[in-house]
Amino acid sequence: MMVSNKVCENGGECVGLLPATNDDHGGVIVDIEEAMDAKVFVTLLRDSISTWRQQGKKGIWIKLPIGLVNLVEPTVKEGFRYHHAEPTYLMLVRWIPETTDTIPANASHRVGIGAIVLNDKREILKELLNLQGENINEAAVREVKEETGIDTKFLEILAFRQAHKVFFQKSDLFFICMMHPLSSDIKKQDLEIEAAQWMPFEEYAAQPVAQDHQLYKYIAELCLAKEQGDYTGLSPVPITSIFHKDLSYLYLNSRHLNQSLVSSDQF
Amino acid sequence: MMVSNKVCENGGECVGLLPATNDDHGGVIVDIEEAMDAKVFVTLLRDSISTWRQQGKKGIWIKLPIGLVNLVEPTVKEGFRYHHAEPTYLMLVRWIPETTDTIPANASHRVGIGAIVLNDKREILKELLNLQGENINEAAVREVKEETGIDTKFLEILAFRQAHKVFFQKSDLFFICMMHPLSSDIKKQDLEIEAAQWMPFEEYAAQPVAQDHQLYKYIAELCLAKEQGDYTGLSPVPITSIFHKDLSYLYLNSRHLNQSLVSSDQF
Repeated sequence: MMVSNKVCENGGECVGLLPATNDDHGGVIVDIEEAMDAKVFVTLLRDSISTWRQQGKKGIWIKLPIGLVNLVEPTVKEGFRYHHAEPTYLMLVRWIPETTDTIPANASHRVGIGAIVLNDKREILKELLNLQGENINEAAVREVKEETGIDTKFLEILAFRQAHKVFFQKSDLFFICMMHPLSSDIKKQDLEIEAAQWMPFEEYAAQPVAQDHQLYKYIAELCLAKEQGDYTGLSPVPITSIFHKDLSYLYLNSRHLNQSLVSSDQF
Repeated sequence: MMVSNKVCENGGECVGLLPATNDDHGGVIVDIEEAMDAKVFVTLLRDSISTWRQQGKKGIWIKLPIGLVNLVEPTVKEGFRYHHAEPTYLMLVRWIPETTDTIPANASHRVGIGAIVLNDKREILKELLNLQGENINEAAVREVKEETGIDTKFLEILAFRQAHKVFFQKSDLFFICMMHPLSSDIKKQDLEIEAAQWMPFEEYAAQPVAQDHQLYKYIAELCLAKEQGDYTGLSPVPITSIFHKDLSYLYLNSRHLNQSLVSSDQF
């Protein structure tokens, strides 16, 4: 909901406010898109905060596109701190009531996938990718198709690794995904990418992998256990929530959960 | 490795450089801690970039503590973009060679845990927490102890959900963790926290949970399947890597993987 950007006192004096929308947690989000003089901005910001404080607002978020970098210093000087940044914008935040700050933390983990395709000839094909806001299962299928031309069916997450301080202070989750090939001819889509190839499983498992040696040993072992049919990882089930408009997935061991439940659309 | 902050040409002219360390990917990280005049900074930055370009450096990272917010605008004007931010600093980056930019993406996911403790009397206790740079299994045990006083053993990740755009554009991973209690007396550690209590499982499963209805139905079903002994999730195995100094964990289905492998210290 867009908040009115002008508030008039009983006496008739009107103050301009920064353009803002209410969030779902009693705060407001200021999203400035037009260039603005820093002095004008500071006047509007002070008047806005005064009004929001009277209205009992809590967290005040200011999203500044990189083109408005001139407003970063004035915003910090008005008591805001950094919250997160992406290449094109910086998000700042200030908690205005006297109560305890409940500003949520920034994203802490990067997510990567090792997509492993094992065919009926016991040949293996592997692709690595990093995820942004995508579903693991869908990204794995799409990436293998884009990089090799091979259509696949996502089977399971065999395992995952959590590691820390991988990238500055951020953590990392790496999901090992088993895929079944629906076609076999590799079409290299991009000359710059590393050559994709089917490799006999025994040759793959015997590779002297100096980097992440222990992880790669486990991957080979997991593939073997899966191929022999006695290993079960976690497979995706679509799930809906009133909080998330986009389709989400719950990854679970579908072999050992009541099948009627997993396949049911009733709840 | 600290790079010399003064470079002298053959003719004897010396230029000052910003304090920087080499990273592992052919780039440098500038970490300025002392207050600096913006004009002085820009002169040093231009000379530094010129030198780094001659040295064949790739990504140039500049970490600015929030106290040096006066340097943000000049840095952006020198061609840098935002990379990520935490409350106390902003990280900017610029790729200087002509080759394709391989700057890694920012962290994309927040990680949360639902720690479920099920005792022998079929009573359930649940704690929710958000992770920063912590191991899932260790954080779950620590948080249950802190919030309720109960000692637990981490058993398995029963399932996890991936959702998107949960918080601005960031995604969310929520891990459902099964814990076994090693003690039973709840000691409320903090009066402000929501009352922790053992709840009969049937009562828990019958709760009308309007929010995330489908997820909670699954959680109840997974607990039941686990209690009946026929469900296996993913359990943590410590794993080492030359890349990560901190101990990492690989989560896998240990029931169906060669037990001698999982318990081996040999590789």
